[in-house]
This record gives sequence, structure tokens and C-alpha cells, in this order.
Amino acid sequence: MSSIKKGFFISFEGGEGVGKTTQKEILQERLEKRRYKVEVTQDPSGTKIGSHIRGIILHKENKELTPRTELFLYLAARAQLVDEIIKPALAEGKIVISDRFYHSTLAYQGGARALDMKTVGKVNDFAIDGIKPDLTFLLDLPVNEGFKRMQPKNNKGKIIKGNQTNLNLSLLFESHVPRLAMDRIESEGMDFHLKVREVFLQLAREEPERILVLDARKSVDEIADLIERSVLSFIET
Amino acid sequence: MSSIKKGFFISFEGGEGVGKTTQKEILQERLEKRRYKVEVTQDPSGTKIGSHIRGIILHKENKELTPRTELFLYLAARAQLVDEIIKPALAEGKIVISDRFYHSTLAYQGGARALDMKTVGKVNDFAIDGIKPDLTFLLDLPVNEGFKRMQPKNNKGKIIKGNQTNLNLSLLFESHVPRLAMDRIESEGMDFHLKVREVFLQLAREEPERILVLDARKSVDEIADLIERSVLSFIET
Repeated sequence: MSSIKKGFFISFEGGEGVGKTTQKEILQERLEKRRYKVEVTQDPSGTKIGSHIRGIILHKENKELTPRTELFLYLAARAQLVDEIIKPALAEGKIVISDRFYHSTLAYQGGARALDMKTVGKVNDFAIDGIKPDLTFLLDLPVNEGFKRMQPKNNKGKIIKGNQTNLNLSLLFESHVPRLAMDRIESEGMDFHLKVREVFLQLAREEPERILVLDARKSVDEIADLIERSVLSFIET
Repeated sequence: MSSIKKGFFISFEGGEGVGKTTQKEILQERLEKRRYKVEVTQDPSGTKIGSHIRGIILHKENKELTPRTELFLYLAARAQLVDEIIKPALAEGKIVISDRFYHSTLAYQGGARALDMKTVGKVNDFAIDGIKPDLTFLLDLPVNEGFKRMQPKNNKGKIIKGNQTNLNLSLLFESHVPRLAMDRIESEGMDFHLKVREVFLQLAREEPERILVLDARKSVDEIADLIERSVLSFIET
């Protein structure tokens, strides 16, 4: 039994530096060992077009990018990801694991950017075309802890101090991007990240059966075991 | 009296090759002669970010671009145009003239791409943030006529025949782009353009006081005179 009739869609959500990518990779490995067919991806950059779109969002010269534009760009990338990657993989009975998806938009563009949450929800629904995750792991970390992990480090792991202000806030949304603008972000960042976390936790409270909150302060192995057990209990019943 | 209290927003709409850009330029010239402050722009590429977005839409390698992605990309560009160019210009009391805007999305993505029109209308409303044109000129041309004007020409004005199929359909949405893929487009193009025209005319019927339909077969001067008179009757009363 290596494929599931209608596929199964898992997303990882949470703030920056909570360990989404690590857990996604461990889960993939463990499921493949059990002979499940797995497709891993990430939102927004899981497609070539999504990578181009992400390039616009992150480009440090695009300082004038407005919140509605940012929202629509993320949704464009997501619609492409759904149609090009996720739908076909689910149709083949694969387990799809995405680093970020639907809920990030509610937390970041709806919560932290303060766009109208109801409208953001509706356009987000249109972007995913009915493809909601069956199961979402929210890796939760207190904002203070998150800030510590987010300190910009040079390539020797030393924290960088400075006053580089021309970097797009959106950098905070993405992994694998050197963070060099902490001072501007620190100055408005605490409030921003409190809102993001608040919305994520609120979403989890509204759908406790689909969004599982995990304490990201636990060890990688401990979290990975919890995730594996949850997934198996969903797909093997 | 060279500025208007709350500004005035004019859009030009219609299929490809109907003369929007020409009429926009003539109107700008005539209004400036009358000492009005005019801001001309185009949707989607009126901002730097919009140009980047248009690059993704038009890039011939992005053949896999899905209709929802295309829609969101156009809306991202429009939201940026509204916030960065149109709102500030209107706030300064300028007359803003845009080559394409709100109604193109309804005609192309709602009509020809067959996305749900009601949903397209709602997300489009969110993109423009309340900034609807005060007056829209729909330059209307029978589809057969439009096709004749759309024949790909080389730089000596001679019609090119061939079978170049790897060009994005979206090229048809834009001016100033060499058209080299007519055979693929001709094969599905008639129906596509019939739908675009049908939606444009339907929109005009729904708001006859705001959307004026002009016969694009008339001479440039004749059309320009009609446009000038209409605009003046709106802004000078």
C-alpha cells in the first residue's frame, strides 16, 4: 500500500526559524521508507513561475510593493502550485508535503499586514480551488524565542549589527535568505510577529482536528516522532 | 482651472489594435493644451513592479501559466498601479488616463478564460480598492476587422505566415509586442475574441452612463473629437 486513493495533503506552517523545512525533510524520508509516494514542495517557490514571482516579492528594489500587490503575488504563485504540482500529485495518490500554504497568507497578509481577513480568506479560497490541506502542522514558538533564532548571522554564525534599511520585510517570510535588515525589522518586528503568531494560533483553535500545534522548542526528533505518528494515524485508518 | 477637485479617471478599453494608445495620446495632448494636469499610464505595466509582472505573464517559456495565476498577476499589477500612480494623481486633482484597467480583466479573464465572472468581479474590486474609472471609452471593432488588424507583420508591413506555436496567448492582450504566432491563435482565436468583445459590450450596456462605446472603424480624428467632447462635458459641468 504505497499510495492513497485520493492522495493526502500536509502543510507545515509557523513563523520564521521554527524548523518547518527540517521537519518536512524528515517526514518525507520516513514516509518514503514506508513506501509511500511523496511529493515535497514549498509555497510560493514550488514552481518555476512561483520562483519568478517570489523574486519580485523579495527584490530589495521593490520597496514600494503594496500589501494588496504582495497578497495577489502570493496567490498567483499558490494558484500555479495547486494546478501544476499539488493537484496532479494528489491525483496520483501521493502524499504532498508543502512548506507553507494557505494559512501563511491569513497570518501574514491578513494578520500582520492588516488586510481585511474575510476578503483575504475569500481570495485565498479562490487561489487554492478547493485544495485545502488535510492536515497542517503549526510549529509554534514564543515570539521572543523566534526573535533570538532570527538574529542575522554572518557565515561564521556571528550576529550582524548594522543599519541596513533597504531590505524588503518579506524576507522574513522566507527561509534560506540572508537576513541583513534586522534593525529596521526589529524596530517594528515584535508587533508584526505577535500578530502572525496570534492568527496562526487562532486558526488552529478554529480547526483543531486539521491544524495540530506543536511546541517548536522540543527537540527535532521529538517533534518528528509526533508528526510521524499523527500522519500515520490519519492515512492508515 | 487646471485641476479638478477630486481628479478624474478615464480608461480606454477594447480588443487588440483598436487604437487605444493613439487615442490616449491625443486626449492627453488636447487636455494639456487646455491646461489640465494629466497623468497617463497603462495597465499592467504602468509601474516598475507591474512591468516585472507583465514580464512573467508574457514570457514565452511560461506556457504552463494557469488562468487563475494569470488573473492574480494582472490584479497584483493593478493594485500596485492604483496605490502608486492613480490614487496620488487623483489626490493632486489630475486627470488620469489609463490604457486598459478594470474592465479588461472581466473581458479577458472572466469572459475569454471562462473564470467565474462573479468571483473575478469581487477580486477585481479588491484590487482597485474603490478606484473605478469615472469614464471609460470602449473602442469597439467587429472581430473580423480586429483579426485583419492583428495579422502579424514584419518590419516592412508584410503579413508573416508560418507555424510558430510557442508564443503566449497573452501577447494578444498587449500592444507593442511583435506578433509571430498567428497560426496557433487564429485556430482558437476567433472564439476567444468573440467572447472578449461580447463581455465588453455587455459591460457597456450595464453602465451606459460610464462606459461609452465608440466605433473604432471611424477615423482617428473623428474618434478623438468625440472623446474630447465627452470628457469636457464631464469635467466642465
